[in-house]
Amino acid sequence: MPDSLSVILALDFGGTKLTAAVVQQGKIAWAAHRRVPSPPDANGPMQVQILFALGRELLAGRAPDAVGASFGGPVDFDAGAVLRSHHVPDWEDMPLRDELGQAFGAPAVVDNDANAGALGEQRYGAGRGCATLLYVTVSTGVGGGLILHGQPYRGAQGLAGEIGHTVVQPGGPLCLCGKRGCVERLASGPYMAADARALLAAQPERAAVLRRMAEDDRAALDARELNRAAAQGDELAMEVLALGARALGVGVGNAANLLNPERVVIGGGVSKSSALWWEAVRESARDTALPEVEFDIVPAALGDDAPLWGAAALAQDLLPL
Amino acid sequence: MPDSLSVILALDFGGTKLTAAVVQQGKIAWAAHRRVPSPPDANGPMQVQILFALGRELLAGRAPDAVGASFGGPVDFDAGAVLRSHHVPDWEDMPLRDELGQAFGAPAVVDNDANAGALGEQRYGAGRGCATLLYVTVSTGVGGGLILHGQPYRGAQGLAGEIGHTVVQPGGPLCLCGKRGCVERLASGPYMAADARALLAAQPERAAVLRRMAEDDRAALDARELNRAAAQGDELAMEVLALGARALGVGVGNAANLLNPERVVIGGGVSKSSALWWEAVRESARDTALPEVEFDIVPAALGDDAPLWGAAALAQDLLPL
Repeated sequence: MPDSLSVILALDFGGTKLTAAVVQQGKIAWAAHRRVPSPPDANGPMQVQILFALGRELLAGRAPDAVGASFGGPVDFDAGAVLRSHHVPDWEDMPLRDELGQAFGAPAVVDNDANAGALGEQRYGAGRGCATLLYVTVSTGVGGGLILHGQPYRGAQGLAGEIGHTVVQPGGPLCLCGKRGCVERLASGPYMAADARALLAAQPERAAVLRRMAEDDRAALDARELNRAAAQGDELAMEVLALGARALGVGVGNAANLLNPERVVIGGGVSKSSALWWEAVRESARDTALPEVEFDIVPAALGDDAPLWGAAALAQDLLPL
Repeated sequence: MPDSLSVILALDFGGTKLTAAVVQQGKIAWAAHRRVPSPPDANGPMQVQILFALGRELLAGRAPDAVGASFGGPVDFDAGAVLRSHHVPDWEDMPLRDELGQAFGAPAVVDNDANAGALGEQRYGAGRGCATLLYVTVSTGVGGGLILHGQPYRGAQGLAGEIGHTVVQPGGPLCLCGKRGCVERLASGPYMAADARALLAAQPERAAVLRRMAEDDRAALDARELNRAAAQGDELAMEVLALGARALGVGVGNAANLLNPERVVIGGGVSKSSALWWEAVRESARDTALPEVEFDIVPAALGDDAPLWGAAALAQDLLPL
């Protein structure tokens, strides 16, 4: 029977970063934690090789009691397989759970980063104590994970939580997914930046700060720059951020009406926006949800490590109580 | 231990109808089923008295092994109490579960009609075999119930499933709930009728059939009349029904993105609309959900009895296996 010294290996496969940690089960203290950039030309098997080697290094000869992995893309949870990566080639139908089991001689579990991030925040982060939680990550895309009754909820095909592709403006601008007016199209960093660039061309007089920034390097305009410009009073930057925040808030409020969660945790790069952005998200979500549906909206606590902590939690749940 | 002859009493408290049934557990065959109209001046205690008497009559001296009740309004499931009725006075904080337990000497359970209806359809109706199900009822309002992992999902406060008040047209027309552009405001029977009346006044030339109906009795225009007019080629009636159906479809598609259900079951008076309405709902839901999110949309099978069957299922679940 595992005691408080059970050893868990947690791995997080991101598009650009690979992270490993060894955790003492029961103590939830990182024994070791290491992140390396993924080589720009990496493919799936290379990423596996790199992160497995990093895991072995951190384990330093110890045998883990369980291994959990988070993957930044679609995963068939029941089969323990990665379906594909949107960023890195040769991940198709990779039986990652079995490969982990063979490589480390321990029971293993694999989930996508939205579910893992949700569980990480719920067990160790901003969602502690909440049995019902919606986790939203707003960065280059908008992803979501659900914790219901204390466990990740994955849906019939493992596709649940796609708040980023709920439609909040039917007939609105076209999203990469092929639909119009998705939360992701309106609230993600790159799309907000694209909207700002379009507005800047049409209404340069409303964007004194953004215009100066764009003259330096228009292509580099991103959510961080938008926040910088808004902080300096740029009208257009404030408008674009507010529109994105309100669209996100409608998506969150709709999800609250459907799921009645205790709490909504928002992470990802765009969530590092100003208080004005947070205020607009909260106000819009509150206006969208029924008055009697109570929830709060808080920033994620674990940052980029949320999926890694979630992978550790999933692995921990493999161990007997 | 209960055998296949265990007796279950199921009660359904509606705003205008009171229904009781006695069910043989295991056989799922109605031993007896009776519906009476609620007196127009009824209050909560009167409805309780009437339906308890009807239950006793159907039991004919037998002691039930469990009692389940469905209520057409907000219920605190954990407390077993009705919170209030939107239609009938003096239901506030009624401890219905305890009253059932005392009156019938058996374990009892109480849930709202949306959750009960969802469970009824999932166990005995159009959702059989689906562990994950969204049930939507479209009539004077738009309600919803969720079955996740084979059980009703109620959320942190028991308020989950409010698809009718998800917003699909921000800034759209005002709903009774105080928000704008809710599914209920766009897709429920009375609101579609109100929209038709408003359009009829503005564009009488587009509504030859509706105009004749309205001249007979404008106030009585409802979803059924809209369908009749649409079937006779009335342009405006077709438009109003299609707008309602598409709004409902956006709500359903958004819920599918969040919950990834196997199936969506739609019941209620408005669901008795023409094939054109169903087509518009399905098309809009399909356009709203991500292409890889698979689900079908089917008509409810149990009609007005879905909550009653659900109440029976909840009671059955109280019995030892």
